[in-house]
Amino acid sequence: MGSKSDLNVMQDAADVLAELGVEYEITVVSAHRTPDRMFSYARAAADRGIKVIIAGAGGAAHLPGMVASLTHLPVIGVPVKSSNSIDGWDSILSILQMPNGIPVATVALNAAKNAGILAAQILSTGDEYLVKNLIDFKENLKKKVEESAREMEDSD
Amino acid sequence: MGSKSDLNVMQDAADVLAELGVEYEITVVSAHRTPDRMFSYARAAADRGIKVIIAGAGGAAHLPGMVASLTHLPVIGVPVKSSNSIDGWDSILSILQMPNGIPVATVALNAAKNAGILAAQILSTGDEYLVKNLIDFKENLKKKVEESAREMEDSD
Amino acid sequence: MGSKSDLNVMQDAADVLAELGVEYEITVVSAHRTPDRMFSYARAAADRGIKVIIAGAGGAAHLPGMVASLTHLPVIGVPVKSSNSIDGWDSILSILQMPNGIPVATVALNAAKNAGILAAQILSTGDEYLVKNLIDFKENLKKKVEESAREMEDSD
Amino acid sequence: MGSKSDLNVMQDAADVLAELGVEYEITVVSAHRTPDRMFSYARAAADRGIKVIIAGAGGAAHLPGMVASLTHLPVIGVPVKSSNSIDGWDSILSILQMPNGIPVATVALNAAKNAGILAAQILSTGDEYLVKNLIDFKENLKKKVEESAREMEDSD
Amino acid sequence: MGSKSDLNVMQDAADVLAELGVEYEITVVSAHRTPDRMFSYARAAADRGIKVIIAGAGGAAHLPGMVASLTHLPVIGVPVKSSNSIDGWDSILSILQMPNGIPVATVALNAAKNAGILAAQILSTGDEYLVKNLIDFKENLKKKVEESAREMEDSD
Amino acid sequence: MGSKSDLNVMQDAADVLAELGVEYEITVVSAHRTPDRMFSYARAAADRGIKVIIAGAGGAAHLPGMVASLTHLPVIGVPVKSSNSIDGWDSILSILQMPNGIPVATVALNAAKNAGILAAQILSTGDEYLVKNLIDFKENLKKKVEESAREMEDSD
Amino acid sequence: MGSKSDLNVMQDAADVLAELGVEYEITVVSAHRTPDRMFSYARAAADRGIKVIIAGAGGAAHLPGMVASLTHLPVIGVPVKSSNSIDGWDSILSILQMPNGIPVATVALNAAKNAGILAAQILSTGDEYLVKNLIDFKENLKKKVEESAREMEDSD
Amino acid sequence: MGSKSDLNVMQDAADVLAELGVEYEITVVSAHRTPDRMFSYARAAADRGIKVIIAGAGGAAHLPGMVASLTHLPVIGVPVKSSNSIDGWDSILSILQMPNGIPVATVALNAAKNAGILAAQILSTGDEYLVKNLIDFKENLKKKVEESAREMEDSD
Repeated sequence: MGSKSDLNVMQDAADVLAELGVEYEITVVSAHRTPDRMFSYARAAADRGIKVIIAGAGGAAHLPGMVASLTHLPVIGVPVKSSNSIDGWDSILSILQMPNGIPVATVALNAAKNAGILAAQILSTGDEYLVKNLIDFKENLKKKVEESAREMEDSD
Repeated sequence: MGSKSDLNVMQDAADVLAELGVEYEITVVSAHRTPDRMFSYARAAADRGIKVIIAGAGGAAHLPGMVASLTHLPVIGVPVKSSNSIDGWDSILSILQMPNGIPVATVALNAAKNAGILAAQILSTGDEYLVKNLIDFKENLKKKVEESAREMEDSD
Repeated sequence: MGSKSDLNVMQDAADVLAELGVEYEITVVSAHRTPDRMFSYARAAADRGIKVIIAGAGGAAHLPGMVASLTHLPVIGVPVKSSNSIDGWDSILSILQMPNGIPVATVALNAAKNAGILAAQILSTGDEYLVKNLIDFKENLKKKVEESAREMEDSD
Repeated sequence: MGSKSDLNVMQDAADVLAELGVEYEITVVSAHRTPDRMFSYARAAADRGIKVIIAGAGGAAHLPGMVASLTHLPVIGVPVKSSNSIDGWDSILSILQMPNGIPVATVALNAAKNAGILAAQILSTGDEYLVKNLIDFKENLKKKVEESAREMEDSD
Repeated sequence: MGSKSDLNVMQDAADVLAELGVEYEITVVSAHRTPDRMFSYARAAADRGIKVIIAGAGGAAHLPGMVASLTHLPVIGVPVKSSNSIDGWDSILSILQMPNGIPVATVALNAAKNAGILAAQILSTGDEYLVKNLIDFKENLKKKVEESAREMEDSD
Repeated sequence: MGSKSDLNVMQDAADVLAELGVEYEITVVSAHRTPDRMFSYARAAADRGIKVIIAGAGGAAHLPGMVASLTHLPVIGVPVKSSNSIDGWDSILSILQMPNGIPVATVALNAAKNAGILAAQILSTGDEYLVKNLIDFKENLKKKVEESAREMEDSD
Repeated sequence: MGSKSDLNVMQDAADVLAELGVEYEITVVSAHRTPDRMFSYARAAADRGIKVIIAGAGGAAHLPGMVASLTHLPVIGVPVKSSNSIDGWDSILSILQMPNGIPVATVALNAAKNAGILAAQILSTGDEYLVKNLIDFKENLKKKVEESAREMEDSD
Repeated sequence: MGSKSDLNVMQDAADVLAELGVEYEITVVSAHRTPDRMFSYARAAADRGIKVIIAGAGGAAHLPGMVASLTHLPVIGVPVKSSNSIDGWDSILSILQMPNGIPVATVALNAAKNAGILAAQILSTGDEYLVKNLIDFKENLKKKVEESAREMEDSD
């Protein structure tokens, strides 16, 4: 993430990765305040065995795109609605609208949880075990909605 | 893709997948006009050996999100700026703003090429051969810019 | 509705339907978390005697459009301004901008009350009794404004 | 419609109504230039046997909402992207964002065809014959997509 | 104004009119809930000796434009940011984007005070006394800023 | 107007003023390139017998607001959609969103014709002759719509 | 700044200028309420030895652009999100979208701190001492991020 | 500039710098395709004697902000409206909304000419000769407007 203040949003990614059985590390790398750190982090990631990078940032959010420019790994971008953001539009467009050649897999505003799930889905293309966890996770989502529906119908 | 008219945009995905050495199939599945076809396509995809799905659509673009709801595979969404679209905002927001639990890896407006590259990156997490192709691809992007720079500096 | 959390908005539809003398049922069906449930609900609705469907959802709101794709019944869509929505634009555009062939009758942001009134208007095209209730309802709106006007003029 | 210049958009509504077997009349009524005509047209519509009104207009599009204020009939609004419109946002918001009590069933920008289909759906709630036509219409949409899919797959 | 709830915004117009020495009346007229009242109010206004009409409304704000269509008097529109408004964009565009032939003099969002000043400016084109008041009013604005400046510079 | 390139838009104001029998002068005054000229023009206007000022400008359109700050006359602002404008939003917001104390009577994007009509309406508050012209003008608008309606109904 | 109420935003500029060792003065100059004061302030600035002007304003923010039109000094504009601003879009576009010939160096919404840093950067092009301060400032930003990173990694 | 295709916009900066008597170099540096080149270019710039950097880019435009993160020099950002840009909003917000600590002096969409003038203004804070050129340049702008005004008044 680009700043410690993004942690309250980005923690959701860590939590769902843990729930889905994916190992992860979490740190702060600022594109604008620590460009060298970003360079060495992104450049070294693949060799350190990292398979997917989730980058969350707000405002003129350059971290996801710059990391994507520095590695061949898939990069997931989380637009964070930070305090002086213009309703989140700045974060979304800065992350989403990457030029041809350098994609960033963008998820919804503040949707760090979905970033975690997407990372697991990506890894599951080479890992049967994760497939099972993802199917269970989906099954759970369904059950909760069905329960809501039953409650609501019963309360009629 | 959601409509044959999206082909002029979506062909870029096919082309870059071919360039990167990824096998693919391409077809038309409309969330709104052929919901059953979408259901059976998305539900059967994983068992047919498909690893990643790229879904492109315009306007109220429900195809990527609905496919994502029907499979545990990673789904990449391409917002297409169709004829009556409101500058592409409708496609982008319909694809990007998925609720917690069901991510869609969204790329830039009309960026089918980036969708193809992202699909290759995803598959490369389990395939060394693709890693090499992606690194070569990035190297090529760099060379073209350096050439532009030389030309421009020489013409000064 | 797409989620139990939409109930505080969608209850207004139920209340005004009751006031206008229209029978209704209310439940939770999520396009993304329970796609099968949505399919069977929408497909079975006409045969169960349902005449109009009101679907409310937020964010990338696919429920109204997908239900419309699965039934020939008129579908009314209520864009809900949910917590991570981008000022409601995502819900509005996801519901409103349906492609040719599959309309959704969209009402204002959070305007579940208007969805209920519209449903009654639709049913009234084949039901004289509802016409009378709608005319009375309109008369009441008028009276309240006239009363406000009198109060304000008197307080001058 | 609010102006003769809207005819190239609104003709689609007439065409699809004819295709679906719904009788209609078509005329020009301007909220701003002929308010009396709008008043008498909207007030007399129900008594003349009209069941649904489709109103299309651009810019500060007041016609659909004002007609809805003057009748208990369901009113469908078509936002038209006119020449000095701001990308259609003005038409959409002027038609969609009606206050509680007076709904307008809004369809997508320039989507007069969908307005016609929605009108047929509304009338079909009291007319079995139209139900059959609507089901056939939906079937046709599906067939065209399936044909596109076959062509594309064959050309691979 | 279109609704009693707009009074907390619209009161500013009344206050500044009083301050500038302009006689006024204030009432509630809803375009959508009391269209007949709006018609008769707007049609009768000029004959009753009214010279300028200020109309404030929120959401799909049709009151200013409809009043302008019903009278030759200058009409000032105040976009009100009401509770379910989309950040005020709906009110602004519904009031501002009037078609050729029927202008509404639109002021800033919630700027009822400016509507009052503009009304006085309009009336001052035929009334020397108001010119003097407007010049004094402007002088006062200036003095308050100069005082702020002095305070700030002194506190350095 | 702020630039000679605005003439193709602003000419409409001149034409309708001539049609309505209002004397006018037309010139170029740039807030940013000729601030002194703007100052002296705006400051001298009232004493020269000018009653209303119409100011049209595009982009960061400061001319209408600055002229309003320099005179007590009513100022009408015409947002012009110039070449590098962002769909006209910049012109609209720069002209409309004036602070309390300094109103600008803003008309629709490129609506110089409406600016001319509004100017005539303003002057008509002190001039019976203009009232008659405005009533005739409105009558003409109505007749043209009624003619369109007749043609359309006849062609059915 | 355009109004005393902007001080809570603009104070950040003063603070960072002090931190970076740049002398400054701070005052209130309103484009709309004190146009003469703005004229004389901007016109006299260069001769008084001022090198850079920072102008912050909200809504239809004309101060930065008008000051830029009145001096050859570089002008930095700070869009302020004031109370009736439309999410800050009005301030941003009024300041940013200046016509060719009259630039304003615009910073992010409410980013008075960045305006101060930019002013120091501008002055540093002719002042070695400021270069050193800016390099130290950048170094400090980096250290704070690295510290955050260490804390976060340690707490894992 | 980020891509050779930006040259048709960015050439204006070169031209006005030449006109104002400022030496410059022009090249292509892509943040996303040549991140190393960007790093070494930005890091070396100050030592090579460069005083100001103008960076133009479109879409998710990270070049200006990343260059600003890598140097203490003032950086001017030019948002370029590239082919798949969303009306330029993506470029503007990606460049403008920089976090505290790392300003980018942003100019209007496609306003490379203003970027050149701003660069000259910045350099003029330490160079009397440039002041003279800037004053002449401003004088010229004024004369052209005055000429337009005379032509228009004569043609009346």
